Amino acid sequence: MKRLFTYRLCLIGFKRKGFDRVYSYTLGESAGASAEQVRKDFSIFKITGNKRGGYKIDELLSAIEDIIKHQEDQYMIIVGMGNIGRALVQYKRFKLRKMIIVASFDVDPSKQSKRWNIPVLPMEMLEDIIKKFHVKIAILAVTEISAQDVANRLFDLGIKGLLNFAPIILKTPDDVVVNNINLCDELESVIYYTQKVLE
Amino acid sequence: MKRLFTYRLCLIGFKRKGFDRVYSYTLGESAGASAEQVRKDFSIFKITGNKRGGYKIDELLSAIEDIIKHQEDQYMIIVGMGNIGRALVQYKRFKLRKMIIVASFDVDPSKQSKRWNIPVLPMEMLEDIIKKFHVKIAILAVTEISAQDVANRLFDLGIKGLLNFAPIILKTPDDVVVNNINLCDELESVIYYTQKVLE
Repeated sequence: MKRLFTYRLCLIGFKRKGFDRVYSYTLGESAGASAEQVRKDFSIFKITGNKRGGYKIDELLSAIEDIIKHQEDQYMIIVGMGNIGRALVQYKRFKLRKMIIVASFDVDPSKQSKRWNIPVLPMEMLEDIIKKFHVKIAILAVTEISAQDVANRLFDLGIKGLLNFAPIILKTPDDVVVNNINLCDELESVIYYTQKVLE
Repeated sequence: MKRLFTYRLCLIGFKRKGFDRVYSYTLGESAGASAEQVRKDFSIFKITGNKRGGYKIDELLSAIEDIIKHQEDQYMIIVGMGNIGRALVQYKRFKLRKMIIVASFDVDPSKQSKRWNIPVLPMEMLEDIIKKFHVKIAILAVTEISAQDVANRLFDLGIKGLLNFAPIILKTPDDVVVNNINLCDELESVIYYTQKVLE
C-alpha cells in the first residue's frame, strides 16, 4: 500500500517531465522497487500494462487514485496543538487531497492564532464536533503522558483511524487503525544507515 | 530495523509499569509482531533470551541501544523553515536522543524567532556550517519545487543522510541514505485502512 503512494509520486514526476508512458523497470528504479515488484503490485490491484509500450501514466494514475480514493472530503480533527499540531494545522497539502481539518483541540484553547483558519477548541467540545461532522479520523499530537487517555476518549467517541505522533505504542480496540509517526525514530534510522554507509 | 525502535518503545512502556522481564509473545503483541518475529529479529541482532523467564527488559534495552547507538552527539541541520521546519526546530525530543540541530537554513533568514535557540541562517552559509560541525545528516523541509536542487547542494557538501519531508522522490547518489516522510500519504493510508474497517 505504501508503495502505491510512492508509485503515484514518481508517476506525477514523470508526467511533469513530459512522459506519457512508463515501463515497470523505469518506475521501479525511481520508486526503489524491482520491475517484478512493480508488476506484482499492479497485478494485485488489477492494473494491467502493455508489454511493448509500457504503462500509460494517466491510466496508472487514475487506477491508483481509484484504489486510494475518497471522492468525498474526509473530515478530520487534530488533538494537541504543540509544535507538531501547529505545523499540521497550517499544512496546505491536506486540503489539496480532500483531507479537511475541521477543528483542532487543546487543553489550552488560548493557543489559537489568527493566522489559522481552523479553530482551536477546548477538549470539552470534542464530542460535539466529532458528532456534527461525523469525524472518523484524528491526528494525535499530544504529549506522551496524555496520549493514551486522549486516544481512549477519541475511540469512545467513534474515531476509527488515528495518525499518532506521540512517541508511545497505543493500546487500541480491534476496529481502530493507528499509523505511528515517530520523528526521533525516523531520524535515528537515517543516522544508523548513514553510519553503515560511512563505515 | 524500524521494528527495533518499536520494541524499544514498548519495552520502555513495560519498564515504566514495573515489569523487569518480558516474553517474546507479550512484546510481540504490544509491538504488533508475532512472537516468532520478535525472536527472529532478536536472534539476527544476537540478542538471546531465557526460555523460561523471558527476556530481561534492561538487557534487551541496552542491547537495542548498542545497535542503534551513537554515543556521541550527532550534529544535524534543518533546511527549510516552513511549518514543518519550524515545528522540528522546537522539537525537544531530538536533544534527549543526542541529536543536535546546530543550525537551520532558509532562503529567507528573517524567519528567525526569538523563541528558538537555533539560528536561522541564509543558504549561503550552508558550506561553512556543514564543514565546521562535520555535519553528515540533514532534515529537508523545503518546498517540492526546490527540494531536488537543495538536496543536490547538500550532497555536494558531504551530507550522507537525509530525512526528507518534501513530497517528491529525490534522485540521490548511491552513498546517500534518504528516509522520506510524506504526511499526506501517512494520513491517506489511515483513511484507506479505516474505510476498509468500516466497510
